[in-house]
Amino acid sequence: MQIAILGGTGDIGEGLALRFARDTSHHIIVGSRTEEKAEKKAAEYRDKLEPYGGNYDISGMDNLSATESGELVIMAIPPQHLRSTVESVDNSLTEDKIVVSPAVGMQRNKAGFHYNQPKIGSIAELIDSFISDDVPVVGAFQNLAAGKLSNLEKEFLADVIVTGDETEAKKTVSELAEAVTGIRSLDGGSLANSSEVESLTPLLINIAMSNDGMHNLGVKFQ
Amino acid sequence: MQIAILGGTGDIGEGLALRFARDTSHHIIVGSRTEEKAEKKAAEYRDKLEPYGGNYDISGMDNLSATESGELVIMAIPPQHLRSTVESVDNSLTEDKIVVSPAVGMQRNKAGFHYNQPKIGSIAELIDSFISDDVPVVGAFQNLAAGKLSNLEKEFLADVIVTGDETEAKKTVSELAEAVTGIRSLDGGSLANSSEVESLTPLLINIAMSNDGMHNLGVKFQ
Repeated sequence: MQIAILGGTGDIGEGLALRFARDTSHHIIVGSRTEEKAEKKAAEYRDKLEPYGGNYDISGMDNLSATESGELVIMAIPPQHLRSTVESVDNSLTEDKIVVSPAVGMQRNKAGFHYNQPKIGSIAELIDSFISDDVPVVGAFQNLAAGKLSNLEKEFLADVIVTGDETEAKKTVSELAEAVTGIRSLDGGSLANSSEVESLTPLLINIAMSNDGMHNLGVKFQ
Repeated sequence: MQIAILGGTGDIGEGLALRFARDTSHHIIVGSRTEEKAEKKAAEYRDKLEPYGGNYDISGMDNLSATESGELVIMAIPPQHLRSTVESVDNSLTEDKIVVSPAVGMQRNKAGFHYNQPKIGSIAELIDSFISDDVPVVGAFQNLAAGKLSNLEKEFLADVIVTGDETEAKKTVSELAEAVTGIRSLDGGSLANSSEVESLTPLLINIAMSNDGMHNLGVKFQ
């Protein structure tokens, strides 16, 4: 499968690109605003993967070309750039593709990090509202700690909660998640349940900040 | 320590009463609207604890008497009855007591359960706004599955996140939580971080509903 990661040069994009490249046989396309930046990062990621013995399949493209090539399109975009990015690639999001939403809106005050909930309910539903109804949107990967994900020496055990309204699309994303070593995928139900998944991320950061030795936290449901 | 559980006849109140009674040496006071109902439930709980070999220290009182006797007062009250209950005992909440907030506001629609966030931020902060500024409020125990908690045959491993603005009060609640077999207490920071803890509860229910064999879920951060 061709996996395009828009915003693939950012923290969470990097972690997903590295883990997907190392642990699965999919082709990874790092998307960025310019092809040049995307290619540079893709080369960096290939270098980071060298110790793992691979001739890993990562390329770089501008966001639009990445979207055109991707079968799965992951929107690893900060919330403030989400609308402009999604609208710039919208015409290329055809119904045979799956859009994945890993982003979370947060704000920080002196107490800690807080969920900045979009009026529509969640970032996943916001993306869904920007694009054609025919294109399935799936929420996933919001609760993975970027620092741990992008450090390939770190092993981790974490649950990824998958939300969405199209069974086949959820299954594809769920299988991709479980192909990453250490990840278990759990069904979170409908896309309308995404806000409760997204709001777990500031909680993870607050706990990491207030407890010794708990940086880059993940979560396991049991 | 005298632990008063207002709403101690409800699901989560029952679980907390049974586990605290069995696993700690504290005296448990089940609070309810009437002394009669509270005493009946306290007797039931003592019966349930009989197989565990104890002469367990659980009594029943009306909510006001329970509050007067309690050093720790746990508001295990459904959100819709919270204000009236807290205001009915407010005069007895002196600054030497600690108030604990385990409740979560939720609503259900066809997609699943959703966090019903109070305007002020969280149930914990709502309680704090109802009572005197001198009385410390601590958020804790929101994410424990009542079904598992009240079934003493079930062992469980779960994290309890403790939020609050008074260090000593948090420490007392944290030690109480950790005295329960299987519970680890984590610092969630300030009381203003309570909403992210409360909103984890509907997520746990949604995951339990959508995945086989995952009833009565708890959560572990790692």
